Amino acid sequence: MTETTSICVVGGTGAEGSGLALRWAKAGHRVTIGSRDPAKAAAAAEELNGRLGRPLLSGAASRDGVAAAEVVVLTVPYAAQMSTVEGLKDVLAGKILIDVTVPLVPPKVSRVQLPPADSCVVALQAALGEGVRVVSAFQNVSAHKLKDPDKSIDCDVLVAGDDKEARALAIRLAGDAGLRGIDAGPLANSVVAESLTSVLIWINRTYKIPDAGIRITGIDAVPPASS
Amino acid sequence: MTETTSICVVGGTGAEGSGLALRWAKAGHRVTIGSRDPAKAAAAAEELNGRLGRPLLSGAASRDGVAAAEVVVLTVPYAAQMSTVEGLKDVLAGKILIDVTVPLVPPKVSRVQLPPADSCVVALQAALGEGVRVVSAFQNVSAHKLKDPDKSIDCDVLVAGDDKEARALAIRLAGDAGLRGIDAGPLANSVVAESLTSVLIWINRTYKIPDAGIRITGIDAVPPASS
Repeated sequence: MTETTSICVVGGTGAEGSGLALRWAKAGHRVTIGSRDPAKAAAAAEELNGRLGRPLLSGAASRDGVAAAEVVVLTVPYAAQMSTVEGLKDVLAGKILIDVTVPLVPPKVSRVQLPPADSCVVALQAALGEGVRVVSAFQNVSAHKLKDPDKSIDCDVLVAGDDKEARALAIRLAGDAGLRGIDAGPLANSVVAESLTSVLIWINRTYKIPDAGIRITGIDAVPPASS
Repeated sequence: MTETTSICVVGGTGAEGSGLALRWAKAGHRVTIGSRDPAKAAAAAEELNGRLGRPLLSGAASRDGVAAAEVVVLTVPYAAQMSTVEGLKDVLAGKILIDVTVPLVPPKVSRVQLPPADSCVVALQAALGEGVRVVSAFQNVSAHKLKDPDKSIDCDVLVAGDDKEARALAIRLAGDAGLRGIDAGPLANSVVAESLTSVLIWINRTYKIPDAGIRITGIDAVPPASS
């Protein structure tokens, strides 16, 4: 890790968010779990601290956590993505928002069903405007792999966003979570990671495996370009 | 290879199509290069035969090649995809069509720009109707890797289609071309492979590498499920 970042994981009480929060806290970042219900957030932070054996994480109401953080990570279900962010718009101003949302439409979650704007992260950026730098990342990493912070994960993280500095930050945070982040280009390219999750779910079912993932081949060095 | 298949590669005079044709001919399939111009098709087949040192491939006008083949593989540029197939609709009836088309929109080919139907292969299936079983495959394998039939390629082939038997055939043909085919689900899931090519082009440029590809992780055995 090159520097400590203060991160609020909104929806960090869920499986995906808590796994990322755990790994970032262990790597030395200041991590807050954000939830509409601050008591629920505190309980989740407490649970993660118990697993780490150190009181590294805290919980907060999302608004307070976001206001205090440099970087915000959104890990809520697709159905809650837009409403959650609408309520945080003012405190998100000027920040980097890493959106992990996968636009799955139950019950057919193994079938790609793109949202009206093709990418739900592109739609989020449009709703927030240029004052928030939105980056797409972590859609294809299974929550249950993230859970054990010592477990290595055979999956790359496609990072898409229109701001190069924000992409570099997300790539760095992927590395701090034990993953290889890959610069995947402009935010429009988020379509790939958002749709890939359905294909991975299909592959899990078809091949009877727990956790299909992806690797980008042809990049020799494991550490990605950081700028 | 389990059995010999007669394959017509429409657009097989191009780089992607000729690489696949070469590999399938070498694996023992009966391969015809199809082109609007039969002389051009014959010349391309001749050139490939020269490289193989054996007269394994033939050339034909696309209509004739398609009429005589069991399986048709479409490797024309996106701009020519629909018009090419419209003219072959009657001879395609009852066959399996493997569509390799990537909906790139120049000049911004490293940016995902989805077609109106999200997937250009889904649009093709809709245009052809249920009488033709359309499968999507091979979008992410670079032509220059295919060119040398002895070169191993570090890239999986996502195979999407609504017909299970047609998917299994495309997976088998991927294997015969020296690639690992992966069952990626219904045709709608073709969005992933179609959009991924732009991301791979972005990665090639950003990381200054010639040929980014993808691997699906978590599937232990290299040979895919064949049915």
